[in-house]
Amino acid sequence: MDYFSINGLSRLDVKWSRLYNIDPNFLIPRANPHYELIMVADSPVFIQVGQEKYTLNGGDCLLLLPWEEHFAWKPGGGSFFWVQFSSDPSLELIDAGDNLTSLLKICHTSSNFLRTSTNEHAGKLIIPRLYTPSRRYECLHTFEIMINEFNKPKGYYHYRLNRCLAKLIEISAEDLLDKVMSDINLPASIITYQRLVEILNESYMLECTAASIERMLDRKYEYLCNIFKKYSGITINLYLQQLRIQRAKYLLRETEKSVQDIAFELSFENPLYFSKTFKKLEGLSPSHYRDKFQTLLSAGNPSLTKATAPNLY
Amino acid sequence: MDYFSINGLSRLDVKWSRLYNIDPNFLIPRANPHYELIMVADSPVFIQVGQEKYTLNGGDCLLLLPWEEHFAWKPGGGSFFWVQFSSDPSLELIDAGDNLTSLLKICHTSSNFLRTSTNEHAGKLIIPRLYTPSRRYECLHTFEIMINEFNKPKGYYHYRLNRCLAKLIEISAEDLLDKVMSDINLPASIITYQRLVEILNESYMLECTAASIERMLDRKYEYLCNIFKKYSGITINLYLQQLRIQRAKYLLRETEKSVQDIAFELSFENPLYFSKTFKKLEGLSPSHYRDKFQTLLSAGNPSLTKATAPNLY
Repeated sequence: MDYFSINGLSRLDVKWSRLYNIDPNFLIPRANPHYELIMVADSPVFIQVGQEKYTLNGGDCLLLLPWEEHFAWKPGGGSFFWVQFSSDPSLELIDAGDNLTSLLKICHTSSNFLRTSTNEHAGKLIIPRLYTPSRRYECLHTFEIMINEFNKPKGYYHYRLNRCLAKLIEISAEDLLDKVMSDINLPASIITYQRLVEILNESYMLECTAASIERMLDRKYEYLCNIFKKYSGITINLYLQQLRIQRAKYLLRETEKSVQDIAFELSFENPLYFSKTFKKLEGLSPSHYRDKFQTLLSAGNPSLTKATAPNLY
Repeated sequence: MDYFSINGLSRLDVKWSRLYNIDPNFLIPRANPHYELIMVADSPVFIQVGQEKYTLNGGDCLLLLPWEEHFAWKPGGGSFFWVQFSSDPSLELIDAGDNLTSLLKICHTSSNFLRTSTNEHAGKLIIPRLYTPSRRYECLHTFEIMINEFNKPKGYYHYRLNRCLAKLIEISAEDLLDKVMSDINLPASIITYQRLVEILNESYMLECTAASIERMLDRKYEYLCNIFKKYSGITINLYLQQLRIQRAKYLLRETEKSVQDIAFELSFENPLYFSKTFKKLEGLSPSHYRDKFQTLLSAGNPSLTKATAPNLY
């Protein structure tokens, strides 16, 4: 059995969607450059993909790879919905050899809640290549909505189509999780982790000591360090440094405060330690960073003149 | 009045969401590295952003820029939901000087339905910085769902949070469109355009002549050329070339067919014209393209060994 993994932050983009009433043309092999999700409306659907012959029943779903040839392996049959879409990054095909349960460990998505995390920290969703969704009519209804959007296009219909696709993916992924894991509630420690991240986010500019954190959460610091590391993959100290340096970068870019003042404002012991930490995380010194940004700015890069995109730098 | 434009294919990523019952801490200025959407649950909310003092009522929404300082400009007040999120690409801030109606021309999203289009062709959504959504309780309910996902995290909750945010954005954008444009139905010619794109997608490998297209759509070819150009921004001929070259790239990568055979299969007049067209669109010759891909493959780049990502090359 094959599965697909999908980055939770993928740009899913619907290219086209239709209901297809099977006709003799379906006996001719076809392929298209996008992923294609097929869902049977009226059974049966006799479809061959590569060497594999399927007889699909009502509600069955099949996900095709880009350029994968498919056609009816015998005449006749009912109808199916299809949606073609692109995904950035691409879906990954995972073969049956892998351990599905370990794939489905979804807690690591938690690292994405850190203020300093980026797209590649996103968790992955797993869906089978061939499946029958338990919420069959919700899926069929979602296809119905998509077809209507195509037939009577209104403002922002493309955006709505993409949201429909995201919903189809979500339903299929949740189904698989339900089947494989008896308990899809996440462990209670994740709540403590959340609280911890919130406290760090709110107090990183003050002196954030082990004792003060222990007091606020009423948990041993060692335990908090462990769960933070477990869910985020980094240490509390590194995260605090990341938060401070993130703020420092903003202050260097958008204010004229001196490096000394910024070090002081962010509760660094001394400016030297601030510069050292900055260099460790960013690869250049604070004043270099400021110079570099000023140079880019004076070169007239318009996207840098607004405060709209600071976390990109 | 300020507006934000959001790329319809932005990766919207929820960082955190809460209901905040206003307390004296809110008198202290705060800022965070992400966008923040605030929605008033219980009025009033006295909030100052920069030099601007607002008194917000129930249902009012306010969108804050990354690092934008905000705080209560007087004590007291009710509660508000907030969600912090990142967006890739960033939101763009548009000032009141711009012509909103021309911004709201959303038909150009249609170019994104071409098989050969990429992310930057996506349409943009426009939402105001300060607004009161007409579907107030649907928005508040969406916040409620997000808070519940945070408080009782279940598998794939992060993905669901992002879908909730996308919904909040959608509602706000649709509202503005409704207000500014009396008719959000797209013109009937877009249906003809859709049919035309479908026909081109299905028949680009055969000989696709002006006469055959005219016959299938029962419209003058000149008219079809005009609407195709209007919605897609390119000519029918260029699109047909793009489709053929897209397929050619796949055949060059994944099969061992000769350049001659591929030219023939894709109905090019002769191999020379095929090579010329390929070079014009891709910047290198078909055989160069094949060599380059083989080199990458033998260098062991694992993401190239599966047929999962062909349209990236």
